Amino acid sequence: MNKIERVEKNARLSRAVVHNGLIWLSGIVANDFNEDIHVQTQQVLARLDEMLEKTGSSKARLLTVQIWLKDIVADFDGMNEEWSKWVCENEQPARATAGVSFDDENIRIEVVAVAATL
Amino acid sequence: MNKIERVEKNARLSRAVVHNGLIWLSGIVANDFNEDIHVQTQQVLARLDEMLEKTGSSKARLLTVQIWLKDIVADFDGMNEEWSKWVCENEQPARATAGVSFDDENIRIEVVAVAATL
Amino acid sequence: MNKIERVEKNARLSRAVVHNGLIWLSGIVANDFNEDIHVQTQQVLARLDEMLEKTGSSKARLLTVQIWLKDIVADFDGMNEEWSKWVCENEQPARATAGVSFDDENIRIEVVAVAATL
Repeated sequence: MNKIERVEKNARLSRAVVHNGLIWLSGIVANDFNEDIHVQTQQVLARLDEMLEKTGSSKARLLTVQIWLKDIVADFDGMNEEWSKWVCENEQPARATAGVSFDDENIRIEVVAVAATL
Repeated sequence: MNKIERVEKNARLSRAVVHNGLIWLSGIVANDFNEDIHVQTQQVLARLDEMLEKTGSSKARLLTVQIWLKDIVADFDGMNEEWSKWVCENEQPARATAGVSFDDENIRIEVVAVAATL
Repeated sequence: MNKIERVEKNARLSRAVVHNGLIWLSGIVANDFNEDIHVQTQQVLARLDEMLEKTGSSKARLLTVQIWLKDIVADFDGMNEEWSKWVCENEQPARATAGVSFDDENIRIEVVAVAATL
């Protein structure tokens, strides 16, 4: 039986779950929901870096990402601008983007990622 | 080549697919769409328990869960209340929650889960 | 450390990422967004076949699929009609379907899949 390691647990969820070479991350949102799509995306990606480092991985080992946007028509370009600055050249994950709604009306982006351990 | 086991197949989908230590579950909805978010969440989680038992796993081995809500503003707290009663203390999965729409207007919640085999 | 193979990379993403027996596919949309749900679904599934072939797999090795629809009430039946013609008899993946929004208002369907290598 492969061991399951749970990272940054709270009553509802673990921020990351490591099992058999895969890292399953909880949805990541920005620190400050009052910011625009550029800053919210930067904050989400910085937090993603932090979680990957904490689980002994890095963005070069990302396998797949779902990007959820509150207003995909208005924010798709702004998100992509920040994404392109951040993503590893030559190590791009699979990706899918959808417009959804969130519990807090000021959340503009949430990212759900799966990575490989080192 | 790792074997793929498909559980509760119908013409469109398998309710669970087991492969190399992972269990991929189809989206689970409630039995009775006329119920409120509390009862629909209870029914979804009971069905999730049943599918995990059927594939030789349990909620203590959940890796990640996506929770989709029809009305995330109205139902987020009610879903979380039932979730917190159900989820394993110390074995919380990664989790992400989004507001989406469903084919039946009375569906309030759908859960998409991945678990590890025992 | 398991190797990661990235297929059809562009600046933002890889169309497929292969790692430790799993193939993670980017979201697939139709070639022609002016088409109806039937043709868009056919185009998406043909492209899915192509990506699975390119990564040395096939639809008989699909593990799970998320189907995202712009108008799930109007298009659920049309999508399912095409899906049922296409999906492997006896090798159905796990599946979940949600209504979401897209960056181009004419996109009616996007499919996000995970498959096993041969």
